[in-house]
Amino acid sequence: MPRPMTDRSPLAPAAFPALPAIAGVTLRVAKARYKNWDRCDLTYVELDAGTAVAGVTTQSKCPSPEVEWCRDAIPMGQARAVVVNAGNANAFTGHRGRAAVEAIAAKVANHLSCQPSNIFVSSTGVIGVPLPIDKAEAGLEAAFTAAPCGWEDAANTIGTTDTYAKGAHVSAMIGDTRVDLVGIIKGSGMIAPDMATMLGYIFTDAAIDPALLQQMLSAANKRTFSCITVDSDTSTSDTVLAFATGKAGNAPLASMEDAGADAFAAALSDLCRQLAHLVVRDGEGASKFIEITVEGAESDASAHRIALSIANSPLVKTAIAGEDANWGRVVMAVGKAGEPAERDKLAIRFGATQVAAGGLALDGYDEAPVAAHLKGQDIVIGVDIGLGEGRATVWTCDLTHGYISINADYRS
Amino acid sequence: MPRPMTDRSPLAPAAFPALPAIAGVTLRVAKARYKNWDRCDLTYVELDAGTAVAGVTTQSKCPSPEVEWCRDAIPMGQARAVVVNAGNANAFTGHRGRAAVEAIAAKVANHLSCQPSNIFVSSTGVIGVPLPIDKAEAGLEAAFTAAPCGWEDAANTIGTTDTYAKGAHVSAMIGDTRVDLVGIIKGSGMIAPDMATMLGYIFTDAAIDPALLQQMLSAANKRTFSCITVDSDTSTSDTVLAFATGKAGNAPLASMEDAGADAFAAALSDLCRQLAHLVVRDGEGASKFIEITVEGAESDASAHRIALSIANSPLVKTAIAGEDANWGRVVMAVGKAGEPAERDKLAIRFGATQVAAGGLALDGYDEAPVAAHLKGQDIVIGVDIGLGEGRATVWTCDLTHGYISINADYRS
Repeated sequence: MPRPMTDRSPLAPAAFPALPAIAGVTLRVAKARYKNWDRCDLTYVELDAGTAVAGVTTQSKCPSPEVEWCRDAIPMGQARAVVVNAGNANAFTGHRGRAAVEAIAAKVANHLSCQPSNIFVSSTGVIGVPLPIDKAEAGLEAAFTAAPCGWEDAANTIGTTDTYAKGAHVSAMIGDTRVDLVGIIKGSGMIAPDMATMLGYIFTDAAIDPALLQQMLSAANKRTFSCITVDSDTSTSDTVLAFATGKAGNAPLASMEDAGADAFAAALSDLCRQLAHLVVRDGEGASKFIEITVEGAESDASAHRIALSIANSPLVKTAIAGEDANWGRVVMAVGKAGEPAERDKLAIRFGATQVAAGGLALDGYDEAPVAAHLKGQDIVIGVDIGLGEGRATVWTCDLTHGYISINADYRS
Repeated sequence: MPRPMTDRSPLAPAAFPALPAIAGVTLRVAKARYKNWDRCDLTYVELDAGTAVAGVTTQSKCPSPEVEWCRDAIPMGQARAVVVNAGNANAFTGHRGRAAVEAIAAKVANHLSCQPSNIFVSSTGVIGVPLPIDKAEAGLEAAFTAAPCGWEDAANTIGTTDTYAKGAHVSAMIGDTRVDLVGIIKGSGMIAPDMATMLGYIFTDAAIDPALLQQMLSAANKRTFSCITVDSDTSTSDTVLAFATGKAGNAPLASMEDAGADAFAAALSDLCRQLAHLVVRDGEGASKFIEITVEGAESDASAHRIALSIANSPLVKTAIAGEDANWGRVVMAVGKAGEPAERDKLAIRFGATQVAAGGLALDGYDEAPVAAHLKGQDIVIGVDIGLGEGRATVWTCDLTHGYISINADYRS
């Protein structure tokens, strides 16, 4: 039973999409009752033997034991199950937190007669409280015998403060064989009251070598999940895992030279971008979806840092919440990024309208089309640094009273 | 006539302090009417011949022409006047903005029969609109003939969205001679709706070589103004200038070896810290003043970056606004700082209460004293990284609905 979704984000899609089953993937959910609630909060995904795995995890220097466990297991390349706990992040819990992860992996490995390193574990929720092992074990017992469920139930069960279930689907042709990729994700923008974290899971029936899958996932992550921000805060637990069951029957992909590898990589990147956008669209308090493109920087990395400086600026985000064409705040955010920039070469665009170039406002600049653009839900900001060929796009949302209410007022 | 101060910050001092006159400094204010308002918005400070000057300016890559002008003039070491315009930042205005600064300096230099490089200019307010030269010139004419005013009028006149006038005073003994230092400052935390900027001006009657004054100001800045943040946004125009008229009659200070140099440097640093705190206490929407000390980092610079990561975290700032003892968010902010840190060596303190050590919550941790501490207006957070001797303290305020209202809602 998924938890009730209330106060759905105004940026949410109309409905959860129809997603195909992926051969070799079986979804089940159960109630571990990590918090005092009556909702499913434990997701158990069984993967057929031979499933390849790849993953990317948080940059935080204080990662959860789940993240450390996954980092150790990913290089072995093989997965038989993934367990996701919602309601308790198990982060900053010392040896007791580590013991909980080991107990979960051992129990599932015993159930499936496999190595514990084939079991992947994530947890999301409050920091600093060790995950109760007894609840996890009882929840797993219930999950082992539960009837399989669909994607939407699983997407709901991994959620915490998310206001809607998030899933997406793409397909690709490898030679004559069609392969499908399905992803589910949770996150209200890497942040949430007492809960945190973006957790994403991608499943495909393609046959692909785990090292190649890792290479493709890392590349896609750089252009998608690493390009979203809600409030600049980074979770202790962020994790994206990709699982490939190999059931589609394609000629196995082992290198980027193989036929179909490019198509598969493009499909994976497309899926990651869709999932990343779904997270931003559920950003806490969000009322606008904002795309920021920086070009003309000295390098792509420099463009990325400038774009994030704009995307994380509270002044830019509140201006957009107020539908205010305050491009001076974009100048400010470029200036504070610490990256090479020359004021008198800078150009700024809102939507399709150039507002400033050569270091000052355009002569005869008409605010009307910009004001109209800002009244919409999807806002586009373009910045040309005018120095080189570096380019990057990032996505964020605005900063509203809703964010403050969720993060400061919820105790009262 | 100072502008009316409404909605005074709850963190403001009870009243503007009594500040002594500084020999060689004459304050005047006038109405240039840079905006459609009926308040004084031009401050003109005349300095007797022989006044030494030092200054520090914004790190922004897109500085205002006023900042560029001051950077060029400071190394010459001599000042005869400073002009501060409120209501228009004159930033990102190309050659027209530069021309306005040059016109102001030329007019004042002509009035005082001195070099334009002896005239210092600052502007604060909206970005992207060239400062109107005709209004500046008429305002200066009015100021030249106005009766001298006191510190509170000048402190009000340099303000924009500030909710109270900010000034402070310290004194020091150089040999047998007492010298006084007075500072005024404006800023609602480096940020404001359509206006921005922290501008600070320090005046002393001490005799001191400008190079030594610069050395002392730069050192004080590093521990004071560079250690405050309201929302991580950096103005295009931040400027702090120090002027020394030499009228006190002390044996002139020329090096840190001179008798009284240490005392004067300590007094200057103390004054800068007081002024910096006054800015944080007027942070937009602030309801809590927060001091964050990080120790045990690998270096002082590393401690400073970790402390700012905590101080700039929207999740930490909203938790404190909500009086929530959510120390997990401090862990998160340490983890995202990108500085050397080991989760299992980390210790965290709120007020006088240790809440976590060795990578997990203390056994038997009692939230009651922490909750009581968080109900106060002055919040203290201590973090021990456990790796080295690096130490830093920064100051910030909480993030509340008031911030959103000021920065997003003001157009409606």
